[in-house]
Amino acid sequence: MKFCNFCGGPVALQIPEDDNRERHVCQSCGHIHYINPKVIVGCLPTVGDRILLCKRAIEPRFGKWTLPAGFMENGETSAEGAARETWEEAAAKAIDLELYRIFDVPHISQVYLFYRCSIENDDFGVGPESLESALFTEQEIPWEELAFPTVRELLREFLEDRKIGQYPIRNTVIEYPRR
Amino acid sequence: MKFCNFCGGPVALQIPEDDNRERHVCQSCGHIHYINPKVIVGCLPTVGDRILLCKRAIEPRFGKWTLPAGFMENGETSAEGAARETWEEAAAKAIDLELYRIFDVPHISQVYLFYRCSIENDDFGVGPESLESALFTEQEIPWEELAFPTVRELLREFLEDRKIGQYPIRNTVIEYPRR
Repeated sequence: MKFCNFCGGPVALQIPEDDNRERHVCQSCGHIHYINPKVIVGCLPTVGDRILLCKRAIEPRFGKWTLPAGFMENGETSAEGAARETWEEAAAKAIDLELYRIFDVPHISQVYLFYRCSIENDDFGVGPESLESALFTEQEIPWEELAFPTVRELLREFLEDRKIGQYPIRNTVIEYPRR
Repeated sequence: MKFCNFCGGPVALQIPEDDNRERHVCQSCGHIHYINPKVIVGCLPTVGDRILLCKRAIEPRFGKWTLPAGFMENGETSAEGAARETWEEAAAKAIDLELYRIFDVPHISQVYLFYRCSIENDDFGVGPESLESALFTEQEIPWEELAFPTVRELLREFLEDRKIGQYPIRNTVIEYPRR
């Protein structure tokens, strides 16, 4: 970040008064540009005993399978965002959303909120961000072709939880080397 | 937002290709400036049957009582952020953190993650963002002097949950009129 969004002046890293870490501070108007973690919202949609996955049509992980998820937008709730992503990626209307899984992924400054859900009329298609959508039984899940560690972890847990029919909300950290 | 952070060029609101909503797009270098919800992390610290609250030394709600909470920072987990805020506001070392409460507050594009916790050695003080810190029994909580609706809701739920000794993780939306 080099320039101020508000006045176009030069920005420098410095610790503002009453703060304890470096921020991007405008040297002209003084505006402080905070950069904070992003929220990723998504769904784990099921139809009977099958799970809906989407094959990514975008980078990163083009061509890999994932659960519908993406950046939460301003003005929406996390459940609305998770349903919106399910629509955009799988042309499916998510219903009966239940919060299921929170991941912290600090090395990329992201927090994930995943909801379990059903699909209205069991009807789905292929959204613009996907090459393909499909339902998978436990045996059919393409474990080696999943896009992200969060998706793999979430699917494993869900299949375990399903055996006993209880879905506690969990939160853990996906660890990578810290910078 | 008027200027690009990266090249200083003029920014205009437009819908990027492959997108479905307006973004701040640089008319010079093409950089898209996404603005996404922020995560607020906080703690509900207890010492025996008392709850630690802080009197705010900063706006908004200067002089009102709150739980230690604030914006999550890049590179930390939500639990680390909640503990950091507890240190900054109440000079208390949060330990044994357990995720307890998620709030969506869409009209201000925020997601709250609150943890229950204890305090190391039951030791606390007053952080730079607080005028005062104190422990409150249920009867002593200053309900009319609480800073935020999320804090009021969280305290009410916690006191109910404590009666039966179970603390399920909940998530609800704090509704205000949508824009």
